Amino acid sequence: MYTLYSMQRSGNSYKVRLALARLGIPYTLVEVDTLQGESRTPEFLAKNPNGQIPLLEVAPNRYLAESNAIPWYVAGGTTLAPEDRIERAEALQWMFFEQHSVIPNIGVAFFWLALIKGGRDLQQHALDDWMEKGYRALGVMEMHLAKNPYFVANRFTIADIALYAYTHVADQCDFELTRFPAVRDWLGRVAAEPGYVAMDWQPERLAAAQ
Amino acid sequence: MYTLYSMQRSGNSYKVRLALARLGIPYTLVEVDTLQGESRTPEFLAKNPNGQIPLLEVAPNRYLAESNAIPWYVAGGTTLAPEDRIERAEALQWMFFEQHSVIPNIGVAFFWLALIKGGRDLQQHALDDWMEKGYRALGVMEMHLAKNPYFVANRFTIADIALYAYTHVADQCDFELTRFPAVRDWLGRVAAEPGYVAMDWQPERLAAAQ
Repeated sequence: MYTLYSMQRSGNSYKVRLALARLGIPYTLVEVDTLQGESRTPEFLAKNPNGQIPLLEVAPNRYLAESNAIPWYVAGGTTLAPEDRIERAEALQWMFFEQHSVIPNIGVAFFWLALIKGGRDLQQHALDDWMEKGYRALGVMEMHLAKNPYFVANRFTIADIALYAYTHVADQCDFELTRFPAVRDWLGRVAAEPGYVAMDWQPERLAAAQ
Repeated sequence: MYTLYSMQRSGNSYKVRLALARLGIPYTLVEVDTLQGESRTPEFLAKNPNGQIPLLEVAPNRYLAESNAIPWYVAGGTTLAPEDRIERAEALQWMFFEQHSVIPNIGVAFFWLALIKGGRDLQQHALDDWMEKGYRALGVMEMHLAKNPYFVANRFTIADIALYAYTHVADQCDFELTRFPAVRDWLGRVAAEPGYVAMDWQPERLAAAQ
């Protein structure tokens, strides 16, 4: 059975949890609090020298890192992972787009504004830039989703999972989604997929703890 | 025949040129100067709404973006693209690592320090952060390459191409590679691959033009 090293409030970890749930694959969950340095201990660095979660133990002492790579492994051979050559490349295109156009703006805004008490004051200088670039990314997604029900291959795939993770909490960190109706419809379609699980990042409990 | 929209001095564009050269695939090259706004014209945005190069026209009016996705398409079915499920995921792991740990530090430093006249003064405030994170990424690569000749599957793949693009010019933007002997040996192995082409970004000519 897989062991997944994950942090509940991490959108990147959620991608893997959502893929495993959708596929009905059981796994052992190990919670790693990166804010407490738990991904920088010698023990964890021996598993992943880059010191990041999520991390999946795919076989005894064989570890796979990266939130957008792990789903290609666990979903390999299922309809969630497009194997057609052009569809595979298009899925990857959107997953790399997620890495450089969604995470550094919407993902980082979610971290500082929704998860970290006092984060808004600490990052005041960066907010305008996150908003501008995050809205630009949402605009690119809107254009595509206005003409397609999903990102690739006209069906739900791991590209949707990758983009859903931070987009579905964008409204928790100042982004206004009303002007992106196709994105909102797509968010609804993903949430209606069989096997869907919520991210369950529990803002009330997190806020109280910090 | 493919048409590749590329910028000569872009490491991301170089990844695709190197993959196509290694595979002996002919293509039509269209030079796009992003610094002159040529990737933000209405004509270009109609091809790639995200306004970035490289961009490959894979069939009439069908475009594929992202420097780390395009190689999966052009190399699909060859030994350059690992198809084994775990090896494919490991190749992707390293390509996503390249996106968030190499590009924003070594890639961005190369842009400002090697390509843009006066860039060092403009970005003085960011240099220490690029150096620290860039060296950390080189350290992760060194650990892996000290035990493996290539990043994945014990052979040259598109994961090596992705990581080579900016690592091989790191010494052009302040990074000192003497303390990374395994990385240097690997750089030499990549440059000795059949079909290798140099990035040919011509610093003298660029500097004179700016």
